[in-house]
Amino acid sequence: MAPLRNFYPVILAGGSGTRLWPRSRRNTPKQFLRFHSPRTLLQKTYERLLPLTAPERMYVVTNHRFVDRVREELPAVPPQNVLGEPEGRNTAPAMGWAAALIAREHPDAVTALFPADHIITRVDTFRRVLRAAVAVADTGRIVTLGITPTEPATGYGYIERGEQLGEYEGFIVYRLVRFTEKPDRATAEQFLRTGRFSWNSGMFIWRADRLLSEIAQHIPDLHAGLQRILAAWDTPRRDEVLREVWPTLPNTSVDYGIMEHVHDGAVIPADIGWNDVGSWQAVYQEYPKDEHGNAVEGEALLLDTEGSLVLSDGRLLALVGMRDVVVVETEDAILICPRERAQDVRQVVAELKARGKEEYL
Amino acid sequence: MAPLRNFYPVILAGGSGTRLWPRSRRNTPKQFLRFHSPRTLLQKTYERLLPLTAPERMYVVTNHRFVDRVREELPAVPPQNVLGEPEGRNTAPAMGWAAALIAREHPDAVTALFPADHIITRVDTFRRVLRAAVAVADTGRIVTLGITPTEPATGYGYIERGEQLGEYEGFIVYRLVRFTEKPDRATAEQFLRTGRFSWNSGMFIWRADRLLSEIAQHIPDLHAGLQRILAAWDTPRRDEVLREVWPTLPNTSVDYGIMEHVHDGAVIPADIGWNDVGSWQAVYQEYPKDEHGNAVEGEALLLDTEGSLVLSDGRLLALVGMRDVVVVETEDAILICPRERAQDVRQVVAELKARGKEEYL
Repeated sequence: MAPLRNFYPVILAGGSGTRLWPRSRRNTPKQFLRFHSPRTLLQKTYERLLPLTAPERMYVVTNHRFVDRVREELPAVPPQNVLGEPEGRNTAPAMGWAAALIAREHPDAVTALFPADHIITRVDTFRRVLRAAVAVADTGRIVTLGITPTEPATGYGYIERGEQLGEYEGFIVYRLVRFTEKPDRATAEQFLRTGRFSWNSGMFIWRADRLLSEIAQHIPDLHAGLQRILAAWDTPRRDEVLREVWPTLPNTSVDYGIMEHVHDGAVIPADIGWNDVGSWQAVYQEYPKDEHGNAVEGEALLLDTEGSLVLSDGRLLALVGMRDVVVVETEDAILICPRERAQDVRQVVAELKARGKEEYL
Repeated sequence: MAPLRNFYPVILAGGSGTRLWPRSRRNTPKQFLRFHSPRTLLQKTYERLLPLTAPERMYVVTNHRFVDRVREELPAVPPQNVLGEPEGRNTAPAMGWAAALIAREHPDAVTALFPADHIITRVDTFRRVLRAAVAVADTGRIVTLGITPTEPATGYGYIERGEQLGEYEGFIVYRLVRFTEKPDRATAEQFLRTGRFSWNSGMFIWRADRLLSEIAQHIPDLHAGLQRILAAWDTPRRDEVLREVWPTLPNTSVDYGIMEHVHDGAVIPADIGWNDVGSWQAVYQEYPKDEHGNAVEGEALLLDTEGSLVLSDGRLLALVGMRDVVVVETEDAILICPRERAQDVRQVVAELKARGKEEYL
C-alpha cells in the first residue's frame, strides 16, 4: 500500500482509564497494555498507520510523564514529534497543538486523530477506509469514521448520517447530520432501526488548516492559547510558555468542541473490527477462545470452567467450576468479577482512592 | 487445670493433604498452616494439650523432612521427642513407635493420638472430656472421642455406641460397638436418626502397654518391626535400623488395624467444636464473617460480594459481584472456585501432577 502524499496522523496517548484495572494504572494507562500481542496498543496503533505514511510524519501527544516511554516504544518516530502535555486537557487542545505544529511546516497537510488505546482487528479494511477519508479530507471536508453498530450499545456516542456524498476507494461517504451523546437503551434501539446511525469511533480526519480555522471559530480561547504556544516554540521560552498557557486552555473534546458545530462534515461507515477496549468484557471479546469459551493468557489451570477471561502475569491461576468470570492477575493485585459486571471495575478504583490505597492506583 | 499424672500425648503431624491447595503443599502440609491465628494448626494442637501435661511428655511423629520444622515450632518439646518417619506408613506404625518409646520408660503411661491438623474451637470442653478419657483409659480400656454429628456428612467415618458404661468428670462413657467407613448419604441419614452414632474424630486414648499388646495381637508384623527398632534405639545403629525396618512395616491405620478388633472399647461423645479442616469449605466455616457472610484475611476489597472466603497472603484481592466463592492467594498460585466445589481442589493438584508442574505441588 503506497503511502499517502500529505498525511500526518496524530496519535493521542493521554489516557488514564480505570476500567481495565488492575492492569491499567496511573503509571500504566491502557495505551501501554498488551492484549494477546507482544506489542502495546500504542505500538499497534502506530503499526496500523505506518504503511500510509512515514514515521517522520507521525505525531504523538501524551502526558509529559509518558514522553520517554512513548519515545522508547516508537523509536522510529522523531523525538520532537512526541509532545508532552503538562496536564490532561481533553482532546481538543491536544489535537489543536499537534495540528498547529504540523500546519506551520506543511500547509497542505491532512491530519487525523487516532486514539492510542483502541483495538482494530480488520486492519486492511481500516487502511483502505482511511485512504478514502484522507482523499475526502483533502477536498476540505471534515471526516469521521463511523463504526457499524452490532448492538444497541449505550456506552458509545452515535453519529447520524444523511445523504450520500459520493464514493471514494470503494467506500460510500455520507453527509454527517449530527453527533449524539451516549443514548439510553430505547434510544439506541431506535437508532439501530433507522439504519442511519454509526458509533462514534473518535477518529477524525481533516486538513490541518481547516481544523485550526474551526478551532478559531468555535473555541477562540483555545486558538489564542495555541497561538501563544506556537509563538514561543522556537525560542528558549518554549517550555515555560507551554507550562504557563496549557492549564488555561479549555478542557474540551474534539467531538463536542468542534464536530458538533461542523456543517459540512462527512462520515464513512467502516466495518473495521473496532473495539475501544472499554472494559474487561471488551477485552474478552478480542481474545481467541478455547472450546469452553475461555480466553486464557499466561499460567492457568481451568477445570470445568466456561466463558471466562483469565489473564495471568506470572502466577498460576487455578479455576474450578467457574462460569463467565474475569480474573486478571498482576504483580500486586488480582481482580475477580463476573464478566457482566466488568463495568463496575471503576468502583474498585474509586473505592481504592477513597481508602487512600495509592499504591494500587 | 492440673496436669494429669501419667499422660503422654502423641501428636501425629505426618499429613500431606492436597485439599487445601494452594496453601497446603508438599513442603507445607496442613499442620503447618495458620487459619485466623498467628499460630499453626500444629502449635494450636500442642497448646490445647499443654495444660494437661508437660512439654517433656509430649511426642510428635512427623515425616523426617519436617523434624527440624516441628522442633522450631515447638521449642519446649524435647528434640528427642520429635520422631521423624523415614516415610509415611499411616497412623498405626507412627503411633506404635511413639507408644513403644513411651512405654519402656513409663510403664503406666496413658498415651493418646492427636492429629496435628484439626481445629477444635471449644478448647475448654475438649480438655475436660480428655480428662475423662484419660481416667477411663487408665482403667485399661481403649477410648475414643466421638464427635456429635451436625449433619449426615459422607466425608467422615462413624462410630456406633452401645450401653452406658458410667460417668467420668461429667461425661457419659458408652461402650464402643463398631467403626464404620464413610457412609453414603442414605446410610448417614439413618445413622443420625438412630441417635447412636458419632463421627470418628481420629483421637484415641489408651494405656501404652495396652496399645502395644493390641498391636502384637492384631498386627504382629508391626509389633515385630517395632521390637527391632526399639532393640537398636540405644545403639549406634538406631538410624540405620529405622531406615531399614520402617519401609517394611504394614501401611495400616489405627482405626482399621487396631480399633476394629477391640472388644472392650469406649466412646465418649464430645461436642468440642471439631473440624478436620478437610476443605476450604471447612476453613470458611471456621472464620468469623462480616455482615455479608464473607470471611476475609489479608489485603482485600469486596464490593457487592457475599458468602465468600477470601484469603490473601500479600496481594490485593478485589472482588466485585461474586457469590459464595473461595479465593486463596499465595506467592505463586491463586485458587478460585465456588465454595460448594471446594472438594474438587484435589483435582487441581492431580492435574498439576499430571502436567508435571512440580513447582506448584
